Amino acid sequence: MEIQSKLIDRAVRELSKLPGLGRKSALRNILHLLRQEPDHTLALTEALKDLVENIQRCKTCHVFTEEEACEICRDPKRDHSIICVVEDIRDVLAIENTGQFKGVYHILGGLISPMEGIGPGQLTLASLESRINPETVKEVLLALAATAEGDTTNFYIYRKLQNLPIEVTTIARGISVGDDLEYADEITLARSILHRVAYKGS
Amino acid sequence: MEIQSKLIDRAVRELSKLPGLGRKSALRNILHLLRQEPDHTLALTEALKDLVENIQRCKTCHVFTEEEACEICRDPKRDHSIICVVEDIRDVLAIENTGQFKGVYHILGGLISPMEGIGPGQLTLASLESRINPETVKEVLLALAATAEGDTTNFYIYRKLQNLPIEVTTIARGISVGDDLEYADEITLARSILHRVAYKGS
Repeated sequence: MEIQSKLIDRAVRELSKLPGLGRKSALRNILHLLRQEPDHTLALTEALKDLVENIQRCKTCHVFTEEEACEICRDPKRDHSIICVVEDIRDVLAIENTGQFKGVYHILGGLISPMEGIGPGQLTLASLESRINPETVKEVLLALAATAEGDTTNFYIYRKLQNLPIEVTTIARGISVGDDLEYADEITLARSILHRVAYKGS
Repeated sequence: MEIQSKLIDRAVRELSKLPGLGRKSALRNILHLLRQEPDHTLALTEALKDLVENIQRCKTCHVFTEEEACEICRDPKRDHSIICVVEDIRDVLAIENTGQFKGVYHILGGLISPMEGIGPGQLTLASLESRINPETVKEVLLALAATAEGDTTNFYIYRKLQNLPIEVTTIARGISVGDDLEYADEITLARSILHRVAYKGS
């Protein structure tokens, strides 16, 4: 598919670098933009430019923010004695949506993955260790994906922190709410039995 | 899902205006951009800005181009006596890919659709009529979608041109190459019987 306009060709090439956008859907999006007023496209380009030029990471938890410290780290009402370790900002959004966590976060920026060549050095682990002052921090909650990479990273962090006088916890693995047992995979079911909890009548 | 960074929020909102990109995939794309060097994003924004600020439409056939006239309209080797009428630039790309058409194009910019409130006045029909000089143009080939809107537009153009001493043709509808008859829909099969062609041994 040869596009004769160099301008369109370049825009399609750049847009199709985004994950999940092939050349065909990039072209469809570019034609959509061309059908509208240029102001629509300029609003998008301004927003993206402004984003990459002004975004920074919170010095404490590494979440993206436009200030030195993020809203959660600055909030005195949050419980700064419990740090929830997550992979990226989407996990923060998911956990915040539950309304069940009142502590603070630490963004790793990835998971240890020998397959993808990601080692502990590429994650924000040194920064995590340095912010754990046992006088103020009581618990580190590992909320990572239930995958091999997540398990490896959990174990690595646990080994690093096990000698500190703090509690290291992980989120519970088990049968999803609303799921039938017969459709659950064996490993999840096995874990949910292994990590059974006392029934308190609800 | 409340994103605390106003910069990210604005970029996600703008990006999710593209067709086929919901808020979740827009956020995934934005996080992908943030994981890379800012130069990658700036290359995208520059390409889009350059595109909407410098693109124009060919004065003759209305295809997007960066010059007054597009490459095809300027090409003396193309057959300017046959004009292929298409909906948008993607159809031009598809037909050029076949290598079977050596004429020139005319981009309508849409199809007549009472449902979507698109009337003949919003298409480039006046411009099509004005470029048909019966001394130089012999044939208008209608290559529109095989939909109700395509059929309506075909008929409208045919009525407009029927008194001119030129041939008005449409691309053949029929069974796709490689398809079994039993899986073809009835209308396509009926049309392919109605528009049967003389068998020439190949």
